[in-house]
Order: sequence, then structure tokens, then C-alpha cells
Amino acid sequence: MEDLRQQFLDYLEQKISHQQPSGLYDPVHYILQLGGKRLRPLLTLMSTQMYGETVEKSLDAAVAIEVFHNFTLLHDDIMDAAALRRGQQTVHEKWNANTGILSGDAMMIMAYQCFLSYEPEMFYNLNQLFSKTALEVCEGQQYDVDFETRMDVTVDEYLLMIKLKTSVLVGCALQMGAIIAGKPKSEQEKIYAYGIQLGMAFQLMDDYLDAFGDPETFGKEVGGDIRENKKTYLYLKSIDNNDFVEELKELFSQDYRDLSGEQTLKKERVKELFVNSGGANRTLEAINEYTNKAMKTIDSLDMEETHKAVLKKFSEDLMSRIS
Amino acid sequence: MEDLRQQFLDYLEQKISHQQPSGLYDPVHYILQLGGKRLRPLLTLMSTQMYGETVEKSLDAAVAIEVFHNFTLLHDDIMDAAALRRGQQTVHEKWNANTGILSGDAMMIMAYQCFLSYEPEMFYNLNQLFSKTALEVCEGQQYDVDFETRMDVTVDEYLLMIKLKTSVLVGCALQMGAIIAGKPKSEQEKIYAYGIQLGMAFQLMDDYLDAFGDPETFGKEVGGDIRENKKTYLYLKSIDNNDFVEELKELFSQDYRDLSGEQTLKKERVKELFVNSGGANRTLEAINEYTNKAMKTIDSLDMEETHKAVLKKFSEDLMSRIS
Repeated sequence: MEDLRQQFLDYLEQKISHQQPSGLYDPVHYILQLGGKRLRPLLTLMSTQMYGETVEKSLDAAVAIEVFHNFTLLHDDIMDAAALRRGQQTVHEKWNANTGILSGDAMMIMAYQCFLSYEPEMFYNLNQLFSKTALEVCEGQQYDVDFETRMDVTVDEYLLMIKLKTSVLVGCALQMGAIIAGKPKSEQEKIYAYGIQLGMAFQLMDDYLDAFGDPETFGKEVGGDIRENKKTYLYLKSIDNNDFVEELKELFSQDYRDLSGEQTLKKERVKELFVNSGGANRTLEAINEYTNKAMKTIDSLDMEETHKAVLKKFSEDLMSRIS
Repeated sequence: MEDLRQQFLDYLEQKISHQQPSGLYDPVHYILQLGGKRLRPLLTLMSTQMYGETVEKSLDAAVAIEVFHNFTLLHDDIMDAAALRRGQQTVHEKWNANTGILSGDAMMIMAYQCFLSYEPEMFYNLNQLFSKTALEVCEGQQYDVDFETRMDVTVDEYLLMIKLKTSVLVGCALQMGAIIAGKPKSEQEKIYAYGIQLGMAFQLMDDYLDAFGDPETFGKEVGGDIRENKKTYLYLKSIDNNDFVEELKELFSQDYRDLSGEQTLKKERVKELFVNSGGANRTLEAINEYTNKAMKTIDSLDMEETHKAVLKKFSEDLMSRIS
């Protein structure tokens, strides 16, 4: 796995060469070298390899996925007025919002250009999947924004939002491997479904860890969603319990963003309510359910058993940070 | 010509259907129905038709070009903090900057999706040209931003900037018609060259009219470039004259944006200096030169003489607002 990641990073470095004007391209290099797990491009490489094609053939698609993902982070950070990304200054903080907008635009185009190394038929198929996915990610981001000011978001609406904002790109990354390896549509749909299930489990775990994660290992501010009054799965399942809905809704109508004392008290109380209402357990159950579905989908894939075992181990490792 | 424009508008209306979430797609519809000359998509339709293919076959490419062009206007308006576009509220004024960023992102993806109706080989060729052009437009915008704070911009640098920001998309629109009509690369390059020349003439005329245009017909604020201290071709050619460089540089270091009295005096004086320095005449000469080149390039095209005549008439009409 580490070999694959290194191979990807070497290729990324070489592919995204420094160009002029530097005001446009420097921020592109900056955000791409901030690090991260490189989960999505790794999935493209693994999927390609497990379907019997060489990793080399999928490097350009993997770079496209990673460049696109970082473009969404760049524009999202502007919209959220976030100061930090992976512990470093965000692009709009280091430069300014205008630079962030324009460099992000350039990244989206650069992502599309990555596919030009594929022959027309495959280029068409990769492009079609990529555009559909990219537009869905924008839709997911819009729903996320809409939900901030809506008090009547349902669990189904929330699940649709995280599916669009997170899971479809995971599914897309995996399906691209199947496309590159020349697998039929039916097989492409299976590995895409696995990606959706994995992405859902992953995002729900992220919601859970936001409240109950270890501040040492979570990588983000624990309780950030509570501070922002985000109506996550954890919250929505907790207010499902009539005995807790009133106090939770009251707490989630308070804006203690600039009051650290009140914020700490609110976070602690909300976490208690998430546990006592049963919302925390129901979130863990949902994570388990999506993970189990993902494992079953792996079983149905048309690939060698040893590869399925690797994919299962990978999925488990990804989820293991929960324990 | 009016028939073609109407055919395009009907198709655009039908193609860009209303979708959910409305927070994402309403601004897309809003900016696309603000109007404008629809020059770029018209060029795609004309080029296709004159090369002997049906207009219908180029409608999707024309929509792609128009959607992309409006995406650039949307993001540029945020960067320029512009309140008005075609006399109406800009998207970020009517909604907010975040909406403008995200809806713009969606438009770029929607533009790419328009090409999916072409078969893979043609899809590949259109996409390759489109991505190259789109990235160049971003580079042009970055140079434009860079030049705001640079006092040593050369004429060549300025010409490169307007080529990237304006002309390449005109060339691209025309070349797409040649691609769709199955013309060879050599012919594609000729009509692209015509587009570059036409685009340069068009942008230099825009620079000229910004100072000397009729407020009734110009459509934008006359003197807007002077107010913003924009180092246009007109300015750069005027400071080429040693007798005028000092006063012009002094005037272009003043920011009278909020002082309407001073602003009017400055605009009047700058216009005098543009004329007296010879800068105005040299700009008109350059416009003529690019227009003549464009006419010669039309002569060299592989199409019927009647079509060449129409293309010449179209170019002349486009330039006629100068008289």
C-alpha cells in the first residue's frame, strides 16, 4: 500500500509541473503537497490493479481524482472561511480569496486534462463518469449549505447529502479502475456500489469521531460540528428520541462560536445527550451496517479471492480508527 | 444571423433545464438569461454551417462555449466585486459570493457535459481544445490581476494577456465548427487564427471605446478603465510618448473611485492626453491591422466565396460600432 502511495506521489509531483503565471499555479502546487491520506487516488490504483491492469495505466485518472478532490477542498475552505487545512494555512489565507477562486478553477480544468492520455473511447467513459460525479459533489455541497439554515432536515435528506458530497467520489475513483481495466458495465456498477457503501460508512464515522474521537488522532478539531450546529446523523438520530429533542434543539440554536467557556460546556452536554438519547449507538449501528454491506459487495466482485481479502483488510483498516 | 441566434437561444433554454437543488441551479439560469450578444456560440454555429455541416450538429458545442463564457463572467464578477452585469444584479449581489463560487463551478462541469452528445473521437478533439482554451482563459485572468499592481507592463505582455483572456475563446468557438464539420487540422488552425485576430481587434476596440465610446451605445460605463487605472493598450501606447508619460503615470496613480468630481476631471484630462500623445491613433491603427489580418485569413479559408463574404460582413459589423 505504501509503495502504491509513493508511486502516486512521485507521479503527481512530475505531472503537475510548475508553470506561468506563478500567481495561478503556485497555489495549485501548495495545496497538492499539503498531504492527506490520498485515499481516493489509491482506490483508483488498487481497483485497476485488482482487475488485472497495470497500475501505470491508471496513474493519470488517479491524479485527476486527487486534483479534483483538492479543488473542492480549496473552494470549500473559501466558503467556510476556514483558516487551516491539514494544519497549514488555507490558500485564501496564504494568498487571498480571489486567488483561491481562480486557482481552484484552473485545478478543475487540469483534472479534466489528465484524462487526455487515454484513447478516445476510454476517455469518453472516464469523462462521463467524472462529470456526473463532479456535478453531484457540487449538489452535495449546496445541500450542506442549505441544511445550515433549515431546522427540518430529515435523516434521508442528510444521507443523500453525504452520499453526494463524499461517497460518489469514492465510488467514482473505484469505478475508474474498472473502466481502465476494461471491465463490463455490470462489474463497474458493483465496485461503484462498494465505493458508495464505504464512503457512507466513512462519513458517518467522521460524524461520530467529531464528537467522540481522540483529539490526538482525529486530525481535526473535536466538536467542530457541534460548534457549527451541524445537523449530522448523530444529531438527527438523537433528536429522534422525544425525551431529548427539546434540549438538543435549544443547544443547537445557540451560537457560542466566540465564547470558549460556553462552547466547552455545550460540547460536553451535547455529547452526553448524544449518548443518553441512543443517537451515538444508532450511529455506530449505521456505520456497521454500511461496512457490512461493503464487505458483502466485495464478495460479489469479479476478482481473485486474494484481492478481495486485501480490499476487505483495507476497508477494515480505514474503519479501525473508530475503536 | 437573427435566425441562428434564436435557434441557439431556444436550444439553450431547453438544454439547461431546471434541477435541484435550486440554490445551485437558479443562479445558473439567471446569468444565462441575462442576455448579451451570444457572439461566441454564434461563431461556432456559423463556422459549422459554412464548413458544410448542419447547425444542429454544433448546438451542444455552442451551448458549452456560452455556459463556459458565463461561468468566467460569474467568477470574474466576484473577483472584481462588480455589482452589475448587463444592467442587472450580479449573481453574488443577488445571492452571495459562496453561491457564486459554487454555481460557477457547476457551470464549468455542465459545459464539459455538453460535449457528451458527440461520438468519442470528436468528443476527444473538442474536449482537448476546450480544456486548453479554458486554462488559457484562467491564465489571462491571472495576468490581468497581476498587471493591476505592476507599473512596468509592456505592450507585448498586454497583448498576450488579452489574447489569453479574450481571443483564444473566440478562436476556440470557430475551430469547434471546423472540428464538427470534419475539417483537417490545417484548416482548423486557419479558422482559429482568424478567431484570434478578430478577438484581438475586438478587445482593442473595447479598450478604445472605453474612453471614446458613445455612452448611449457602449453598454458599459465609459471611462471605467480610466477609473480603475487599467493599463490598456491605449494607455501603454500613450506613455510611449516621452512628453506625456509623466502626467499620465501621475494620473494613473490616483484613486478617485469615490470622488465623482475629481473622477470626471481625471477622465477628461486622460482622454485629452490619449489623443495628444498619439496613443488613440496608434490604437485605431492596431485595430485596423488586426482587422485586415482577419480579412486576409478569411480569404485563405477552404469554404465557398459566398460564405467568406458573410464572414467578412459579420466581422465588419462587429467592428462598425467604432465609427
